[in-house]
Amino acid sequence: MTDARRPAKKAPMREVLAEAAFQLFLERGFERTTVDDIVARAGVGRRSFFRYFPSKEDAVFPDHERCLADMTAFLAAAGDVEPVDAVCDAASLVLRMYAANPEFSVQRYRLTREVPGLRTYELSVVRRYEQTLAGYLRERYGDARDGALRAEVIAASVVAAHNNGLRTWLRSGGEVDAETAVDHAFGLVRRVWGSGAAGDVSPRSADDGSADGDVVVMVAAKNAPMWRVVQQIESVIGQG
Amino acid sequence: MTDARRPAKKAPMREVLAEAAFQLFLERGFERTTVDDIVARAGVGRRSFFRYFPSKEDAVFPDHERCLADMTAFLAAAGDVEPVDAVCDAASLVLRMYAANPEFSVQRYRLTREVPGLRTYELSVVRRYEQTLAGYLRERYGDARDGALRAEVIAASVVAAHNNGLRTWLRSGGEVDAETAVDHAFGLVRRVWGSGAAGDVSPRSADDGSADGDVVVMVAAKNAPMWRVVQQIESVIGQG
Repeated sequence: MTDARRPAKKAPMREVLAEAAFQLFLERGFERTTVDDIVARAGVGRRSFFRYFPSKEDAVFPDHERCLADMTAFLAAAGDVEPVDAVCDAASLVLRMYAANPEFSVQRYRLTREVPGLRTYELSVVRRYEQTLAGYLRERYGDARDGALRAEVIAASVVAAHNNGLRTWLRSGGEVDAETAVDHAFGLVRRVWGSGAAGDVSPRSADDGSADGDVVVMVAAKNAPMWRVVQQIESVIGQG
Repeated sequence: MTDARRPAKKAPMREVLAEAAFQLFLERGFERTTVDDIVARAGVGRRSFFRYFPSKEDAVFPDHERCLADMTAFLAAAGDVEPVDAVCDAASLVLRMYAANPEFSVQRYRLTREVPGLRTYELSVVRRYEQTLAGYLRERYGDARDGALRAEVIAASVVAAHNNGLRTWLRSGGEVDAETAVDHAFGLVRRVWGSGAAGDVSPRSADDGSADGDVVVMVAAKNAPMWRVVQQIESVIGQG
């Protein structure tokens, strides 16, 4: 794992196929590349391809299944971390997957924008991440009033913020710092939905009675939009 | 429009095709129904189908293109309505399209859940609604700090809330009131992102200085999650 330029013959078959596929998609276009072309380039039989990938589209996004599994495992181990912080941290796993291969990610982003079938595929994957986050939040909120509604709206907010940061990075050609871009976007979500106003991301935020004496006193115009009220609360307590 | 059982010969060709297609999808399943089956049932030639629908999937959702156009026109005419109220009202157009044909919508919901291709198609449509709302908000927020980010996160929140309410209605088999379910869900979004804390949905909310004297005085634990603070503000001013 330390030498990215290890010889191809040592790489696992799945990786060899994904690399051959992606090279061909860039050279000839996605639609004009057949599975036969891919297996010929990789030097394997046609059935090998379908053993690893259900479709050509799956070969373009070879790491999402693993990342979805990682996200599920991460959330299962999150314990009593503040729920919104947990889902933001879980969504960061997706960013890190992209950021681990900047050149590939940027090229794929450009390819995906040109091929409707790949955009549709990507939407399905994004939806699965969103459902994973929403499912976790639904459990955490349990029977609280509007728990399921809140879970779904927050999951959608987190995914939208993540994708905003990710796209900022991809459009810059990988120039800006990916984590900074996404963390900035998550800031908006954490401030509005999480315990971000207190800047406390530890499990103690919900449980530690010792901080309950700290209060915010807030005066706001009745017709101020809520996000502006939130901004003002932050400025009052010197965070944000 | 008042008699749902009007003779097929009077209905426009597009509608006849969509109805024939949907009947067949329910009878035989989506995958097992061919375009040839549909045109035979509708009593027209094969090329007629593709004149109206690019694909079988499009025949399942015959009204989304019109609804997207309506949404765009609605937003273009929204003037200086508070932006979050404008996008919630625009998203309600989608709900009304579903609610106008409860039986069809409920049957289609069940069909869509069983056919992966239809779910993917639906995701693409939902994405286009979301992009329409986000594009509008991006323009409204202009160069404000994090304007584009806020636009995208709010659009995603509105779509998630809409779909939560819509699903509540669809899962009830059309029993609960659709508008009530969606309005309730929008309430969460308006309270957090819009001027909903004041319950003022008129353009005056941003412009009318006469209300600026009304203030909310708020005391909250520093470590309270922001949504709980918002709930408390609402209870203080007797709204929500």
